[in-house]
Amino acid sequence: MSYRLIVENGRAKRGRLSTVHGDIETPCFMNVATVGAIKGAVSSDDLLSIGTQVVLSNTYHLHVRTGDELIKKLGGLHSFMGWKGPILTDSGGFQVFSLAEMRKIKEEGVTFQSHIDGRRIFMGPEESIRIQSNLGSTIAMAFDECPSSKADRDYVKQSVERTTRWLVRCRDELERLRSLPDTINKEQLLFGINQGAVYDDIRTEHADIISAMDLDGYAIGGLAVGETHEEMYHILDITVPRLPRNKPVYLMGVGTPVNIIEAVRRGVDFFDCVYPSRNGRHGHAYTHHGKMNLKNQAYEEDLRPIEEGCDCPCCRSYSRAYVHHLLKAKEMLAMRLLVLHNLHFYNHLMEEIRAAIEEGNYDEWADKTIERMTENLP
Amino acid sequence: MSYRLIVENGRAKRGRLSTVHGDIETPCFMNVATVGAIKGAVSSDDLLSIGTQVVLSNTYHLHVRTGDELIKKLGGLHSFMGWKGPILTDSGGFQVFSLAEMRKIKEEGVTFQSHIDGRRIFMGPEESIRIQSNLGSTIAMAFDECPSSKADRDYVKQSVERTTRWLVRCRDELERLRSLPDTINKEQLLFGINQGAVYDDIRTEHADIISAMDLDGYAIGGLAVGETHEEMYHILDITVPRLPRNKPVYLMGVGTPVNIIEAVRRGVDFFDCVYPSRNGRHGHAYTHHGKMNLKNQAYEEDLRPIEEGCDCPCCRSYSRAYVHHLLKAKEMLAMRLLVLHNLHFYNHLMEEIRAAIEEGNYDEWADKTIERMTENLP
Repeated sequence: MSYRLIVENGRAKRGRLSTVHGDIETPCFMNVATVGAIKGAVSSDDLLSIGTQVVLSNTYHLHVRTGDELIKKLGGLHSFMGWKGPILTDSGGFQVFSLAEMRKIKEEGVTFQSHIDGRRIFMGPEESIRIQSNLGSTIAMAFDECPSSKADRDYVKQSVERTTRWLVRCRDELERLRSLPDTINKEQLLFGINQGAVYDDIRTEHADIISAMDLDGYAIGGLAVGETHEEMYHILDITVPRLPRNKPVYLMGVGTPVNIIEAVRRGVDFFDCVYPSRNGRHGHAYTHHGKMNLKNQAYEEDLRPIEEGCDCPCCRSYSRAYVHHLLKAKEMLAMRLLVLHNLHFYNHLMEEIRAAIEEGNYDEWADKTIERMTENLP
Repeated sequence: MSYRLIVENGRAKRGRLSTVHGDIETPCFMNVATVGAIKGAVSSDDLLSIGTQVVLSNTYHLHVRTGDELIKKLGGLHSFMGWKGPILTDSGGFQVFSLAEMRKIKEEGVTFQSHIDGRRIFMGPEESIRIQSNLGSTIAMAFDECPSSKADRDYVKQSVERTTRWLVRCRDELERLRSLPDTINKEQLLFGINQGAVYDDIRTEHADIISAMDLDGYAIGGLAVGETHEEMYHILDITVPRLPRNKPVYLMGVGTPVNIIEAVRRGVDFFDCVYPSRNGRHGHAYTHHGKMNLKNQAYEEDLRPIEEGCDCPCCRSYSRAYVHHLLKAKEMLAMRLLVLHNLHFYNHLMEEIRAAIEEGNYDEWADKTIERMTENLP
């Protein structure tokens, strides 16, 4: 594996992460396939037609249902879901803290109840890494706690110190697993995660500590969970510069097109977010002029594609009027077409971002694009 | 338009119906796109990859929601749903009698309440044909009453006589509309519908009367609504021979693969049925060895495709284990993959049927195939 910084433009980075499953051109948006499938009836075959580079799957979900051991037995997640490109798996930490019930955190890890069947499960750093190793993902994420942005300073400080100790254990466990003969991906990468809620000094101190560990990449976690956009950008302003410039930086769970453009400006390489698929399933489409609600009566007789010039599978063949009709009739196809459009939009937005950095006018492009994207649409 | 009888093998016919939207090789299975979309998130683009020849859309559904006048204004159903091949529209009659509420039948037509918004609507032969003309379908169906298979003889006799009078009015209205300058499809075809419940003499007398009208094709309606398979085959045995041999024959709403094989043996050309898409959405897959329930635990570790050798978009890329996993996780993609597999199965079954007729061994092929299809699968 290698990360190569191809072009810099201000703090914005245009990079390339080479992995056993292929190169990832950054900045890049990962398409969320929670249980090994993109919600909205989008198959891995479809992903090729919408420019997807990397798929993100959820460790917690795959562990509590179907199970990583079965998926390993069946050949790993790549073969299971029919996707040959890179896959990043999260650590399960965020879901344990947001979805599971009755959780108890100790130094060893977290005991919780599955949201599916109430079964008691223990997950610590070693368990999380073992699950991700069973799945055989390209990039594994370190197991962390994601404290609430409203948690008090003392709690956050102790939590972050434990997350650091967990990171060491994750690294050691992955090293051990990588050398075992029956490990699916012996070159699995590990990204560490910066935490610290909205406390500047905890964030920066933690960034310094994990930067010294020479990991394959660094994520910024615990954002987009209730703080304002300005607070989020501020955390990026103070944190990203402390992370190694020659390593990929991943802002977890973010966000709107504008959030992404602003975060790239601050040096972020990787993104993931459920917005394009979730909003698509609810009838909303992203365009360069803002978000449209296709349920709106305004589109009833509108024969234009969702966005002129878009070559996604929806815009190539269908009109706004048809999508509006399908939404009114509650046809599943509406969701599918909108999810395809939105993921295509995000994937191609990243292409435009990479081109703007290469051309050396990222700031200007970003300002202009953000202005255009916040027009008022029905 | 022309229907050409290419090969006969016993009563089985291998034909070709040439239309303004392309040739239809028969026997043929029409894929049901009720509101201009196949349920299960299947788009018209997808249909090309599963061998679909003809799409069937429902006049009643398109009339009560979105509306045929709007669809005409937007360029007709073909352009609206992005499908260039032949489309058959039903007359709305069956839905008026099965879905709508508070219906009153008179000589002029039927008054009913929309199942969507309770709106009172009147539909008679002229209205049905006007709607189908607005949609611009390739083949329009005559407006008929579909009496219950349990209706008494007197009721059925009177109903069928009225259906005959309605057929004359449908033919006259279509002729009038075909000559208007702004009609979308000036070569729209009309199929008449044979009714008569399970009364042999009413069926055959009605078949003789409509056969004399020299229509573009003939359908047999009112079957698969509660009678046994043997009763259905018996009606075909006595009715199909009374219909013109040099015209396409369509058995409405039928059925299982075995029903179709048996009906082809009795001279039927066209079929439609919601089974492949409905069963797919419920986790069932058709194979040459019978129907599988992919929810069954037996498939949890099964890395084979649903059917070995099948080149549908599901079997080409995904295992039974993956589909089982998606069903357990209630992922929409499971439905889509199973609907694609099932429609592909039906479309390709018709290809095998056509080949067997061409090879002159249809009866032998049919017996063997039916035996194989009724093995016990989990």
